[in-house]
Amino acid sequence: MPTAIPEDSVGLVSPRAQSFSEPLSLACGRSLANYELVYETYGELNKTRSNAVLICHALSGHHHAAGYHSMDDRKPGWWDSCIGPGKAIDTRKFFVVSLNNLGGCNGSTGPSSINPATGTPFGADFPVMTVEDWVNSQARLADTLGISQWAAVVGGSLGGMQAMQWTISYPERVRHCLAIASAPKLSAQNIAFNEVARQAILTDPEFHGGHFQEHGVIPKRGLMLARMVGHITYLSDDAMGEKFGRGLKSEKLNYDFHSVEFQVESYLRYQGEEFSGRFDANTYLLMTKALDYFDPAAAYDGDLARTLEVAKADFCVMSFTTDWRFSPARSREIVDALMAARKNVCYLEIDAPQGHDAFLMPIPRYLQAFSSYMNRIAV
Amino acid sequence: MPTAIPEDSVGLVSPRAQSFSEPLSLACGRSLANYELVYETYGELNKTRSNAVLICHALSGHHHAAGYHSMDDRKPGWWDSCIGPGKAIDTRKFFVVSLNNLGGCNGSTGPSSINPATGTPFGADFPVMTVEDWVNSQARLADTLGISQWAAVVGGSLGGMQAMQWTISYPERVRHCLAIASAPKLSAQNIAFNEVARQAILTDPEFHGGHFQEHGVIPKRGLMLARMVGHITYLSDDAMGEKFGRGLKSEKLNYDFHSVEFQVESYLRYQGEEFSGRFDANTYLLMTKALDYFDPAAAYDGDLARTLEVAKADFCVMSFTTDWRFSPARSREIVDALMAARKNVCYLEIDAPQGHDAFLMPIPRYLQAFSSYMNRIAV
Repeated sequence: MPTAIPEDSVGLVSPRAQSFSEPLSLACGRSLANYELVYETYGELNKTRSNAVLICHALSGHHHAAGYHSMDDRKPGWWDSCIGPGKAIDTRKFFVVSLNNLGGCNGSTGPSSINPATGTPFGADFPVMTVEDWVNSQARLADTLGISQWAAVVGGSLGGMQAMQWTISYPERVRHCLAIASAPKLSAQNIAFNEVARQAILTDPEFHGGHFQEHGVIPKRGLMLARMVGHITYLSDDAMGEKFGRGLKSEKLNYDFHSVEFQVESYLRYQGEEFSGRFDANTYLLMTKALDYFDPAAAYDGDLARTLEVAKADFCVMSFTTDWRFSPARSREIVDALMAARKNVCYLEIDAPQGHDAFLMPIPRYLQAFSSYMNRIAV
Repeated sequence: MPTAIPEDSVGLVSPRAQSFSEPLSLACGRSLANYELVYETYGELNKTRSNAVLICHALSGHHHAAGYHSMDDRKPGWWDSCIGPGKAIDTRKFFVVSLNNLGGCNGSTGPSSINPATGTPFGADFPVMTVEDWVNSQARLADTLGISQWAAVVGGSLGGMQAMQWTISYPERVRHCLAIASAPKLSAQNIAFNEVARQAILTDPEFHGGHFQEHGVIPKRGLMLARMVGHITYLSDDAMGEKFGRGLKSEKLNYDFHSVEFQVESYLRYQGEEFSGRFDANTYLLMTKALDYFDPAAAYDGDLARTLEVAKADFCVMSFTTDWRFSPARSREIVDALMAARKNVCYLEIDAPQGHDAFLMPIPRYLQAFSSYMNRIAV
C-alpha cells in the first residue's frame, strides 16, 4: 500500500470498458459478434492527437500497466517502472493506452465471459486468438478513441510481437515500434515449453474440456504446473542461482519424496499456487496458442525482411543478455530483417542478469535507452 | 529386431540378480534390511581381477546397457554405442558390470517391490536414496563379484555423479573415473525443473500419496508431464529446431485449444505417453531427489577441491557444447577442482549439437576420445 502516491506515478487510475458490436473476423475463420475491451489511459491526448502510445501486454499481463487503483493497492501496475511522469514513457508528453487483450481474463471478453448464444461461459468454445486478431481489435479501440495513428506501439515479449504486427497490418497507423525481449516467431523449444503447460491444464481432471466453470471447479493443479514451468523460462539460470542457489527451506534435509527441501522449490510452488488462484485456464491456453501461431514471415516463405517491407515505422529493438526464452539472437533476427528491408532501426542488447523478466525491471541502462528513444519521438 | 547380432555387439545377454541380506544404512537415516540388485556383465573378468569397469546409469536408465536380450529385441542396451568388442569400453579388454540402481523400477529393489514388512508394494514408503547410498550398494555388489578395485567407474549425467562419488567414498577401489555430461551439484534451475516434474506426479489424483499400485492405477498424466519437461532439457534448442523447427503436424493449422499443430508437440506427447507406460512414478521422484541432494562438497563448506583431495583415481571429464542441462561450465567446475586438488585429469569439450543427450550418441570425436582414454588404462 502506498502511504502516498509517488511523485513519478500516474497516480490513481480507473479502467474503462468499450463495447464493440460490429463482428470481428478472426484468423481461425470464426468471428466475434460482440465484445468488450477493458483499458486504461495515462496522460492527456494532445490537440493534434499525435501523442498516443499503445502498450501491448504479454502472456499473463493486462490493462493495468501503471498507477494504482486505490490507496489500498499493494503494488502499482505491471510496467509502472516505465510509465509515468518523467519515466521512459513520459505521461507528461504521451497519452498512453493500455488494454486487456481479447481472450484475456481481466475484464475484456474472454473464455470466462458469458457466451450470449448459450447464456453460459464460453470456456473452451471461445475462439482461439492470434496476434493479428488482437491488432485488429486494438485498431478498433484506437478508432473509438479518435487515434488514427500511434506515436508508438510498445510491448515486451508477446507484446513486442503485437507491436511488430501493427507495423505490418497497419503501416500508416504507427510511427514507432518498440519490440522488447521479443522474437519473430517461436522456436521448437519455445513451443515445447508451451505444450507442456497446455498438457498440464488439458489433462487436469478438473479442466472438464474447458467447461470447468459449469462444474464449479478450477483446474488449479494444471495452472500451477503451467506457471511453474513458465516461470523457470522467465528467469535466467544465473538469476535463479543468485536468488536461491541451493539454499535450504529448513535447517536440515528431510530426505523424503514430498517435502520442500530447497528455497527454489518453495518459491516455484508459491508462484504456481498464487497464479492458479487468479488466472483463467482457458486464457492461458489461448495466450500460449497466440504465441505459437505468431509467424508473420510465413506469408512470405519465411522471408522476414520481405514481410517487414510494408512497414513505415521506425523501430527500436531491445534484448537482454541472459534472456534464454527470447535470446538476443532472436532480436537480432528482427534487426537483420529490418536492415535488409532498409528500415530505421535502433538495437540495444542490455547486459542484465535477470533473464526474460528483465524487460519488466528498472534496469538503469534499459530505462535510459528506453527514455532516450521515447524522448526523441516527435509529437 | 537384429536379423543377426552385429559383430561389434556383446551379443545376447541375460540379467542376473544378487540378493543382499546385511542391512544397508542410508543417508536418510533409515536402512534397507534386504534388497536385490539386478545387473548384467559383458566381457570376462581377468585372472588378476584388474579389468572390471562399472557403468552407472542416469535418471531413467537401468542395467541393460549393451547387447540384446533376445533376437526379437527392437533395440540394444542404452549405451550399446559405447560398450562392445572394439568399442570405447572394449569388452575384449574389460569386464563390464552394469546394474539397475536401488530404488529403480527395472528389477532391483525399489518402490514397486513388495515391502516384506507389509506384504504390499513399498510405494512412497521406500526410502529416498542418495548417490552415496547407491555407491555403497554398488560396493557390496563389487564384493560379491570379487572385485576389490574397479579399473574404471564410468557414467553420464547422474551416472557421472556416482562415478565421482566412488572416488570420494572408496578412493582405494577405483583407478579411473569418467564423468561425462555431469555436474558437481544441481543449480537452482536444475532443481526447479525437477520440482515441476515432481509436482506433476505428486498432484496427479491417481498418485494416491505414492500408493497407486494398491488402487490399481498409475499416475500416467503426472509421469507424462514429468517426462515432457525433462525431455526438453535433454535436447538443445538447436537440436529441437533442426529436428522439428516449426513443422506442422497436418497440412494446415486447426486453430483450437487442444489440437496438435506442430510436430514438436506430437513428439513430446508421444515421448511422455510412452514413458508413462513403462516407468514407475515413485522411482521418478526418487531419481530426481537423488539428483537434487548430490553435493559432495557440502561436507567441506562447498570446497570441491578439498572434497576431491581424498581421491586416488585419475579422471576423464567430458562435456558437450550445447548441453544446457549440465553445461560445459559445470564440467569445468569439476576439472578446476581436480586441478586444484592436484589430480590427473583429462578434459574434453565436444562440439555436438544434440544437447545433454549427446552422451548417449555415437558422435565420432566423443567415441574416439572415450576409446583413447579407455585404451590407455592398464589392466
